[in-house]
Amino acid sequence: MKTIDVCLTPELIHLYSLKDKTVVIVDILRATSCMVTAFAHGADRIVPFASQEECRLMKTRGYITSGERDGKKVDGFDKGNSPFEYMGTEVTGKKIAFTTTNGTRAIEKSKLAKEVIIGSFLNLSSVIKYLLFSHNNVLVVCAGWKGKVNLEDTLFAGALVEKLKNHIEPDCDAPMAAQHLYNLAKGDMVDYLKNSSHVKRLNRLNIQKDIEFCLTPDRYTVVPRLVNNELIC
Amino acid sequence: MKTIDVCLTPELIHLYSLKDKTVVIVDILRATSCMVTAFAHGADRIVPFASQEECRLMKTRGYITSGERDGKKVDGFDKGNSPFEYMGTEVTGKKIAFTTTNGTRAIEKSKLAKEVIIGSFLNLSSVIKYLLFSHNNVLVVCAGWKGKVNLEDTLFAGALVEKLKNHIEPDCDAPMAAQHLYNLAKGDMVDYLKNSSHVKRLNRLNIQKDIEFCLTPDRYTVVPRLVNNELIC
Repeated sequence: MKTIDVCLTPELIHLYSLKDKTVVIVDILRATSCMVTAFAHGADRIVPFASQEECRLMKTRGYITSGERDGKKVDGFDKGNSPFEYMGTEVTGKKIAFTTTNGTRAIEKSKLAKEVIIGSFLNLSSVIKYLLFSHNNVLVVCAGWKGKVNLEDTLFAGALVEKLKNHIEPDCDAPMAAQHLYNLAKGDMVDYLKNSSHVKRLNRLNIQKDIEFCLTPDRYTVVPRLVNNELIC
Repeated sequence: MKTIDVCLTPELIHLYSLKDKTVVIVDILRATSCMVTAFAHGADRIVPFASQEECRLMKTRGYITSGERDGKKVDGFDKGNSPFEYMGTEVTGKKIAFTTTNGTRAIEKSKLAKEVIIGSFLNLSSVIKYLLFSHNNVLVVCAGWKGKVNLEDTLFAGALVEKLKNHIEPDCDAPMAAQHLYNLAKGDMVDYLKNSSHVKRLNRLNIQKDIEFCLTPDRYTVVPRLVNNELIC
């Protein structure tokens, strides 16, 4: 049976073998939710950057510059980190350069994997189908918050473990912990997360609507993949 | 209100400020359970070593040499990593040199903390009393398994968060995750952990009796503390 493991933060990625894995990058609030939304609205490609400066330079090459630091839009960038900014004709056919506090770092650190895909609740069932048809073992890489574990990414990892349990076996304790937390939370994830540190942090930014959107399963069917350091769909 | 945070593995310790904290080291299966048992039976002191070689040298200075690698007693050492080896007159008044795969590394990495104490289910209520009377914020450092998160140490961290919740506030998402997992498991921790990776690993070593012992709360009242790189009580 194939296996699924969960790396709860990119700070732990050196403990995992990547080269034989399909890595699922998850940054629910809000990088991977934005990326999935953008592709669902016809974005051509998204190039992730770890640094703001490199990302900013892409403007001169016709890219939309996007991203946040500490949850807030970077000064001078075209777009921030709300999925509602990545809808409609504004992104259709466009190339996007993207940098975030945690999500793009998780992608950067996962580059040596056999394949890298982008997961969020918004494309949950499509990610599950993708993993079922793949021959590789799975590693979910949670973006976390500045290196620390966060609840919302852990819940998404747990959702994958739970929904794949008859086909893909948990490899260690972290996937089991994530699965149990997801089963606790799944009845009302918005309520479950209301005391989490990142949700409290985002509530100060007044984006309750974003949080509810990002926790809604299966709005979209796209599964973005990293190919030659670019996300395509 | 004071705060409590949880470092789920020593690999993440660089993310936490230590100098103003009381750190609780936890390696339920089985290093900190052994240490607490030894002090409850009158051990004079325990000197933790990260390396086997340094630990072995202490034999010439009259120390009992103790510890494991990968769950098994180190060749030539006096004792392994079962709490039943640390009972009775064999340890009373004795100095012990101790090295383990994970637990002694967690101690080594926590040395810069304001104070370091040793926690296990065996001395749970005494650790709680100690933390209530201390003026410091609390950081629970889980030993994990070779850098990865494990369930049994996370459950102990969660027990502290749960039992201190009216007095000490969770600082981030990791303590909340640990608390929720403990509340799921507390009715029958032996049963809850039977599918965890470390318990499966230990079952292959045929030490079910150790596991049940290590998960029993409040057998002892000692709270070992690290003073000048030695654990005393």
